[in-house]
Amino acid sequence: MTDQSPTPAELLAARYGSDPGFDPPQWNQTLTTLLQHRSVRRWLDRPVSEDTIRTIVAAAQSASTSSNKQIVSVVAVRDAEQKRALAEVGGPRQAAHISTAPVVLVWLIDTSRIRASVERARREKPVIEYTAAEYLDEVLVGACDVGINAQNAVIAARSLGLGTCFLGSLRNDAERVGEIIGAPEHVVPFVGLEIGYADPEEPAGVKPRIPQGAYLHWDRYDADAATDVGEYDRILADYFAQYDQPGSWSAGLVSRVGPKAVKVAKRHLLRGVFERAGFSLK
Amino acid sequence: MTDQSPTPAELLAARYGSDPGFDPPQWNQTLTTLLQHRSVRRWLDRPVSEDTIRTIVAAAQSASTSSNKQIVSVVAVRDAEQKRALAEVGGPRQAAHISTAPVVLVWLIDTSRIRASVERARREKPVIEYTAAEYLDEVLVGACDVGINAQNAVIAARSLGLGTCFLGSLRNDAERVGEIIGAPEHVVPFVGLEIGYADPEEPAGVKPRIPQGAYLHWDRYDADAATDVGEYDRILADYFAQYDQPGSWSAGLVSRVGPKAVKVAKRHLLRGVFERAGFSLK
Repeated sequence: MTDQSPTPAELLAARYGSDPGFDPPQWNQTLTTLLQHRSVRRWLDRPVSEDTIRTIVAAAQSASTSSNKQIVSVVAVRDAEQKRALAEVGGPRQAAHISTAPVVLVWLIDTSRIRASVERARREKPVIEYTAAEYLDEVLVGACDVGINAQNAVIAARSLGLGTCFLGSLRNDAERVGEIIGAPEHVVPFVGLEIGYADPEEPAGVKPRIPQGAYLHWDRYDADAATDVGEYDRILADYFAQYDQPGSWSAGLVSRVGPKAVKVAKRHLLRGVFERAGFSLK
Repeated sequence: MTDQSPTPAELLAARYGSDPGFDPPQWNQTLTTLLQHRSVRRWLDRPVSEDTIRTIVAAAQSASTSSNKQIVSVVAVRDAEQKRALAEVGGPRQAAHISTAPVVLVWLIDTSRIRASVERARREKPVIEYTAAEYLDEVLVGACDVGINAQNAVIAARSLGLGTCFLGSLRNDAERVGEIIGAPEHVVPFVGLEIGYADPEEPAGVKPRIPQGAYLHWDRYDADAATDVGEYDRILADYFAQYDQPGSWSAGLVSRVGPKAVKVAKRHLLRGVFERAGFSLK
């Protein structure tokens, strides 16, 4: 998104908020695109063309699919009324960027093709069943494959000069999202992805991540290294201070996993949503 | 991976096995990398350097993270003995490519940093709790974020001339995988990712996906379009025939979701694995 391309060392230093302690043996434009990622939450009033969305979705479909199940579908929401309705589900902190995003991709865990194949096969062999739908793993496969598909969309969008923002908050009320997009019974909206042209005035940058030493382990997991994030707390506090925001990573974590956060986001109701959609989660 | 870059129209035609019916308004090398994706299951005997792995992991960490929880870690397994042990978990059909892959990244749903932060905060305020761990959503967030992180690793690897293969089969026995990599109680291995240099002799190509009309919907989900995959069954049968493999997509789906497939892959035991790791899945 800039004309002056930063060096790999600069990109890595921004990503970790410190020297990562290694030199990449090779570099390319795709790595620059990946490393420069940030979420965009302020949009220019500029539409995204239908063929641009199709191109991004072709990239999403090009990703791996667990057991070739192709358990993912997506609805591209551009209608203003529908976006306002999605913004209501997202809640007050997300509403402004949801309703103003040129397009919101709603990613679905979609077993309709599996169910149709099983139904057809049962006509000849009534013993055939969709047993996988009874177990937790099927929903986890859906969640992971949505992540894999949607991330390809993120990278494709960014390579085309567009910004994105994930919306886990659509799971605050997945059934309401299903109504908004007309999803049938067995299709569960899992995550949203806003796409548009970033407002260059947005006060946000590349947010540092935990040190690579906490994230990456060699052959065996190192429990001490995994939780060695005290310095990171300071790095992230400095990052937030740049944008006049208070807080540290640890404090944010604690508030986001407590009883109040769960209830506000209605995540205690999500199991029922999946059960009603035909997943037994055994 | 080839010197002669195919055109966007050629890439899209290969991805869908037919004309997708639109022209991308822009194109770039990153989109070529995304569209050319295929899984690699035959490796050259050529190592992947430590700094190359670090570069790929920096790309993985650059992806979005749900509520900035950073709930993912990864173990890079290069030890031959450990790879053989992972190959046993993967099962007979996957064992050869798991044990010969130069590196297997084992992606983890890792709540250890969240738990450590909550524990620290509880010393001052004993009312603080990790309530999110009691609900299904926390595991879904982990699965989705693993997918998002790992897919960035896939794209980074491919941009560097490397191939990859996802291994959902590590969930055949996630607890055994945890032993192999020394994962503590609350850390759950979720998916593997082989990385290496592809053997150019491997008989495999870009596998076509369901038509974009079944996958992508505009504003409202179209249930008829979603299951309109009869022509795709023929396209995929033709693809398999090129590699002397029988079968159609529907037939494959039905066999992969039935009672036998679930039991062989031991997915009926996975809920217990998560429960023992501290997730109540309410």
